[in-house]
Amino acid sequence: MADAYTSHFGINNIPYGIASSAKRPQPQAATRIGDDVIFLTELASHESFKSIGADLPTLFSQPILNAFAAQLQEVQSHVRTAIQNAYKNKIHTSSSENIRDVTLHLPVAIGDFTDYSASANHVLNAGEAITGVRSFPPAFHKYPVGYAGRCSTIAISGTPITRPLGQYIEDHAATEKNIIFGASRALDYELEIGAIVGRPVEAGTYLNAQDADQHIFGLLLVNDWSARDIQGLEMNPLGPFNGKNFGTSVSPWIVTLEALSTHQVPAPERMGPVAPFLHDTAAVNYDIQLTGSITRGGTATQTCRVGFDTMYWTFRHMLAHHTIGGCGLRTGDLIASGTVSGEEGHQHGCLLELTTNGRKASKLNDGSELRYLADGDEVTYEAVVGNGSMGVGFGACVGVVKPARKNR
Amino acid sequence: MADAYTSHFGINNIPYGIASSAKRPQPQAATRIGDDVIFLTELASHESFKSIGADLPTLFSQPILNAFAAQLQEVQSHVRTAIQNAYKNKIHTSSSENIRDVTLHLPVAIGDFTDYSASANHVLNAGEAITGVRSFPPAFHKYPVGYAGRCSTIAISGTPITRPLGQYIEDHAATEKNIIFGASRALDYELEIGAIVGRPVEAGTYLNAQDADQHIFGLLLVNDWSARDIQGLEMNPLGPFNGKNFGTSVSPWIVTLEALSTHQVPAPERMGPVAPFLHDTAAVNYDIQLTGSITRGGTATQTCRVGFDTMYWTFRHMLAHHTIGGCGLRTGDLIASGTVSGEEGHQHGCLLELTTNGRKASKLNDGSELRYLADGDEVTYEAVVGNGSMGVGFGACVGVVKPARKNR
Repeated sequence: MADAYTSHFGINNIPYGIASSAKRPQPQAATRIGDDVIFLTELASHESFKSIGADLPTLFSQPILNAFAAQLQEVQSHVRTAIQNAYKNKIHTSSSENIRDVTLHLPVAIGDFTDYSASANHVLNAGEAITGVRSFPPAFHKYPVGYAGRCSTIAISGTPITRPLGQYIEDHAATEKNIIFGASRALDYELEIGAIVGRPVEAGTYLNAQDADQHIFGLLLVNDWSARDIQGLEMNPLGPFNGKNFGTSVSPWIVTLEALSTHQVPAPERMGPVAPFLHDTAAVNYDIQLTGSITRGGTATQTCRVGFDTMYWTFRHMLAHHTIGGCGLRTGDLIASGTVSGEEGHQHGCLLELTTNGRKASKLNDGSELRYLADGDEVTYEAVVGNGSMGVGFGACVGVVKPARKNR
Repeated sequence: MADAYTSHFGINNIPYGIASSAKRPQPQAATRIGDDVIFLTELASHESFKSIGADLPTLFSQPILNAFAAQLQEVQSHVRTAIQNAYKNKIHTSSSENIRDVTLHLPVAIGDFTDYSASANHVLNAGEAITGVRSFPPAFHKYPVGYAGRCSTIAISGTPITRPLGQYIEDHAATEKNIIFGASRALDYELEIGAIVGRPVEAGTYLNAQDADQHIFGLLLVNDWSARDIQGLEMNPLGPFNGKNFGTSVSPWIVTLEALSTHQVPAPERMGPVAPFLHDTAAVNYDIQLTGSITRGGTATQTCRVGFDTMYWTFRHMLAHHTIGGCGLRTGDLIASGTVSGEEGHQHGCLLELTTNGRKASKLNDGSELRYLADGDEVTYEAVVGNGSMGVGFGACVGVVKPARKNR
């Protein structure tokens, strides 16, 4: 599997993660180039890092990236260049291990997790799948609509997800809307990208959209697992809760905005005027190509292929809206985009859209029917910038569905 | 002010908080009896605490109560008795300072904050104030409906709250529903009680309601400040976000379930059958009498007086529902009840209810009109069990409204 990622982890990427190994049992900061995981505590002790004004070995020796993420982007940029030079000069070899020998961990401590709904296509498609009507919620064109998610169940790629128990309407088509308790019958994924906050935003100050990039350490992949039946019953009027809080998966490597900067693209045209703090003449989005696939019975089927350039609201908008009321942001906060979806069927970033809430079956390559996720299904996301020729990508975010616990 | 609280902090209470002073500049665990704040790091070094099987001086020396909160309730009960005995034997005097000389801090590190809507009266009253219709959301009688709140802006009583900026509909009565950006014109409080999780619940296991008390360290007062105009526009379909995330106030002292045990009362009768994990033959609620008041122009006016026994869903139900899908609970998690409201006008725990969303002015004792909160208004909550004769109460949760920041 590892060599599939040469187009993700080239010398232009230099993503950050937390890794450990048999030789290095303490989780600590690392980067990845090709199949080499380079442990940065050791690498940054080299004299070529000395001129960077930060105690890098101490920052990198910690089991979370928060302290490094909080540094000025100028410092982070110097570190990236120094790592690239160290690799070119083969200084990295004694600090490296093959990806096969390494365990990756949740890269940051996340104090708050916000999930937005920034894709116009997703809002229209998902709404239509549930209500039959394509329409925007009243605020959609004025700001990105979001909600707070659960921090305690955010897990690193590879962690299995257990089908949740909960209460939901037995049969929406029936006259009698019985509410029953049991294992979710409508387990879904949501293909998202998340931003990790770098420099904090003090509570009571606020960001303008065009200044918000300064506070983004980098991006990663997010699978916002969703139980559509549980969510459907509970979300009136306070939004998603048990339908989402049982688990969220993130990819292990945080790709910096600097690595993505060669693939900035504009966001879609605005539907109408926005408040001053959301004005953004650049409206920076990224040409990130995402794929989602389901492996069932040993056979993989791609269920989604979509570009992040389709997102109506950018991370700059999302951070600005988040702070406008006085809510600060802390280093390590996860701010996710919501499902990335295009207009076409193959661009739908969740099964709610792809199978019209389970009513229209899709075919998987093993010949079976796909409506919602079955026990044993493995969901894999991958993402790469542009056509992959820059060697900048996210690797994978993977999770397999485990059967529900028994009801007691 | 301090002597108003003799009915709150008697020998039967022994609440826990985090305190510092000029003499003891490091924030650390403390309890309060009368006007004495007793620093527990020192007290628990006394030989009378030695037989309790926990390293109490180390637990109490930390700037958050989480490690102590995670102990078995049996240990916490022994500590409570030992503190009571130490006080009776006057062993506490060298570890004590007057409440006037002490600064209180946020008592726990809160990894996740959940806010429920557990009062049937609040749901009916608030719904009517907004839509004109008294009705329950579809799930109300099946489980407590909740959402995730913001952790970073939870602040200790006494912290001012700044009126948030945001976007909202200029005039609901007008034909044209213009969305404008500015300072909230509908700043409200919500009078709530919160539970602090003690022993954690491992993700993937779940609690039955009748076992959930084992995981509650204690209760405190919560003011879930709300900007009704911002909230009103944003919450379709994902629930409250910027309308709530600008600030939440909590009272400094965590009152243990043991201290409240003499005032257990049954919850209201169930409206219908519930799932097995929510069955609770005891359905324990507490006879806690809450008051809310607004001080404007130096004059206080009581705006609410309501009993916590009115809550339809108990904390036992709230914890059980929280875990049923596989979401664990961590020590220090804050689980709030939602607005406590009775049927009568004087029992309404927020202004949305009391003033029918600002349409019906109420009179304050300084002669001014109350619709929503004005800049300078100070909101004070207090709560005591029963008639106060047991000397068990929560003290106060206070916050003053500061004017909005200027739009840039």
